[in-house]
Amino acid sequence: MPDDPTGPFADLAIVNCTALLGVTADRTTFAPGTTLEITGGRLTRIDPNPAQAPRAREVIDAQGMVAMPGLINTHCHAAMTFLRGAAEDVAVARWFNDYIWPMEVNVGERDVYLGTLVAIAEMIECGVTTFADHYFFMDQAAQAVADTGIRANLGSAFFSSQGPVGLAESVAFAERWQGKVDGRITTSIAPHAPYTVTDDDLRGAADAARRLGVKVHLHASEDLAQAKASVSSRGLTPIQVLHETGVLDAGTIIAHGNGIFDSDIPLLAATRDRVGVTHGPKGYFKFALGPLTPIASLRAAGVPVGYCTDGAASNNTLDILESMRITALSQKQVRDDATWFKSAMALEMAGPESAAVLGMRGQIGELTVGAKADVILVDVDGFHCQPLHDLAAALVYSIQPTDVRTTIVDGRVLMRDRQLLTINREALLDEFRQRAREITDRTHGRSIQDYTN
Amino acid sequence: MPDDPTGPFADLAIVNCTALLGVTADRTTFAPGTTLEITGGRLTRIDPNPAQAPRAREVIDAQGMVAMPGLINTHCHAAMTFLRGAAEDVAVARWFNDYIWPMEVNVGERDVYLGTLVAIAEMIECGVTTFADHYFFMDQAAQAVADTGIRANLGSAFFSSQGPVGLAESVAFAERWQGKVDGRITTSIAPHAPYTVTDDDLRGAADAARRLGVKVHLHASEDLAQAKASVSSRGLTPIQVLHETGVLDAGTIIAHGNGIFDSDIPLLAATRDRVGVTHGPKGYFKFALGPLTPIASLRAAGVPVGYCTDGAASNNTLDILESMRITALSQKQVRDDATWFKSAMALEMAGPESAAVLGMRGQIGELTVGAKADVILVDVDGFHCQPLHDLAAALVYSIQPTDVRTTIVDGRVLMRDRQLLTINREALLDEFRQRAREITDRTHGRSIQDYTN
Repeated sequence: MPDDPTGPFADLAIVNCTALLGVTADRTTFAPGTTLEITGGRLTRIDPNPAQAPRAREVIDAQGMVAMPGLINTHCHAAMTFLRGAAEDVAVARWFNDYIWPMEVNVGERDVYLGTLVAIAEMIECGVTTFADHYFFMDQAAQAVADTGIRANLGSAFFSSQGPVGLAESVAFAERWQGKVDGRITTSIAPHAPYTVTDDDLRGAADAARRLGVKVHLHASEDLAQAKASVSSRGLTPIQVLHETGVLDAGTIIAHGNGIFDSDIPLLAATRDRVGVTHGPKGYFKFALGPLTPIASLRAAGVPVGYCTDGAASNNTLDILESMRITALSQKQVRDDATWFKSAMALEMAGPESAAVLGMRGQIGELTVGAKADVILVDVDGFHCQPLHDLAAALVYSIQPTDVRTTIVDGRVLMRDRQLLTINREALLDEFRQRAREITDRTHGRSIQDYTN
Repeated sequence: MPDDPTGPFADLAIVNCTALLGVTADRTTFAPGTTLEITGGRLTRIDPNPAQAPRAREVIDAQGMVAMPGLINTHCHAAMTFLRGAAEDVAVARWFNDYIWPMEVNVGERDVYLGTLVAIAEMIECGVTTFADHYFFMDQAAQAVADTGIRANLGSAFFSSQGPVGLAESVAFAERWQGKVDGRITTSIAPHAPYTVTDDDLRGAADAARRLGVKVHLHASEDLAQAKASVSSRGLTPIQVLHETGVLDAGTIIAHGNGIFDSDIPLLAATRDRVGVTHGPKGYFKFALGPLTPIASLRAAGVPVGYCTDGAASNNTLDILESMRITALSQKQVRDDATWFKSAMALEMAGPESAAVLGMRGQIGELTVGAKADVILVDVDGFHCQPLHDLAAALVYSIQPTDVRTTIVDGRVLMRDRQLLTINREALLDEFRQRAREITDRTHGRSIQDYTN
């Protein structure tokens, strides 16, 4: 097809872009003047030396732009946009017990739809094309994904305090939505955490995940204090609990891993083809949760680590570029080595490594023929990026969210030159702001759960 | 004048803004629906409850915007925009000796003009209205400040390896430009650092600073290794050297202070009315220069600490909002306390504290009648800021550089709704990019200095 002038038309062609065609921990490959063709939601042609104009129904001229794989947010609670800024400058236990869990008593189905829409709008605006979500009323989140055109891995969260219905509904949700909306939705089984879910329910989650061919997505070893509390109360680290209950074996998305011990690494390494860790440093800094996730040890063991934002209630933003930047900066400090965590490694984590955390390596997070057509166009022509001595460094350390000009998911343009095409901004924000005022009411004195580790 | 319908016209009025009218470490005061009036380069009226339309030659409707004091970059090397991305992922000594100082051999007068223009463009675009610059060929930097309308404190940097001419030129420059271009330029005497400048030259700098009524602006105690090297080689910490040579007594802008010891604090406290520390954490993380500046101890001792970006060669951006955010995040971690460094404190450091570092408290960094009319308008209506449960937190943790829509210095609009009004972007970038390629040439084998601490 590439060079056949009588061949079929592509759905969409992007011409004149500088394409990020490959990335490893040490090296990025950028190809200027590249043409990308997209058909049926997939990249069908990548030509760094196009001899002729593309044959496509729509052509985007990306002169001066970098084409990158769409960004991946490997762990968030999308609808928590409602609680952005509602619990600032407090430690974790108080954040949960005094603010978030009492406020979440007020969150209803419609709220999850609205809050997820706002999250999706923010994510499309900063180049996120896939997100993994872990929350409640997830049929509403799925509807928001269906309506907006983004890609997501969705898990219906549960506590064992809900009784057997929690796990059952999480499994039913995963079964109901797996592969739906043109394959843009995949699912996970989503126990909240080992400290709020019983071992029996973790075993049930693992069994269901294996049966459905999906992952278990949960919080575990979020910080050192939590991990030590587990050791002290039951003689096992949270990672050991995941091992013993079969969760690691089933395949797992682990948020957040700041409390992973060296002794946990072999267990994770043994399941590295199906277990990944998701890293969102902004929230860890805000909560003063040192030390940070041992990314060097995890990478050395072949365990994929991806970026996340967590929810906006802790992270304030859903900006994966910011997660990448803070990770790169802080990991140099953690290792006491300015030469480690090169820009290439930061971009590798944003692309194929984040894809691997979701079990989607080869499908998203890279620009290769046959991969999903999730592409963003980034303007690197701003004063803050010039001159371009090092394009990879510009992407990691200089670009701003608004430099993402165009966001494409599954071959469909969801944002064109900063204009959202699938979301009605004003109508959404009007209803969202009204509900945000009501959701923060805590006079009812109730809470959805108690945080004690 | 405020309520006199026959009173004189203001030069400019900003109406319907939510104005940040006060900030302390614990509390911000925002006033919605405020009118600001500007005449003769100063704020002449601030009315949170305007009873009538303003009388002004020009009116800006700032509905939905926050009006804040213009941001202050308390230490940078503006013209180093030329070297953005030219020395990535290397430790400090190699960064200087193998990259920056050999490349700076190529930097000429015209380059400093161009590089400073690019820096000013980037800073106006992210809301910086005053910057402190420490570099070479500073007449060119002063010209760029004159041409663009921004405010700056400029110091002509020198090494003692230049001989007596270094100090002499630094003093002559300070004398020549102090108070020039409608008072928008103030100056400093700018020895490079105690490890590259002799005690005699430091004494000479202090004497000249006292005589001219300006500060000494220099690098000192940049990191712990450097501070320890000073103790080991001469039995004095860098701060003690500044004390013994009279530099602290004269008044000092200290970059960067990551190597300040507890024992240094009393010396700084004794001169806290004229000594300040400038903090740019992004570069410290990139260079893995732990531990971070002891901001808590400095603040407790009453020593002002402001934000900086350092040069784009180490920091990649000149974005003070980013410096503020990373400072807030990392200081919580440094103190192991999520409740410390509230958003109010972050904003206090951005405003009056950064002003104090430059010796300009009361003139810039606050919206008060009589202060310089340096004002920015920030759009907090984006998805990434909504809902606005906590406006201070939105300014610290959510806004993006492009949310700064309008930048006003000395009552003059330098950027209106993201359009730069005093800089010709395309012509500037064309020449700048061409020179950037030539400046990175290191085949000459020379260097401007040797870095050994």
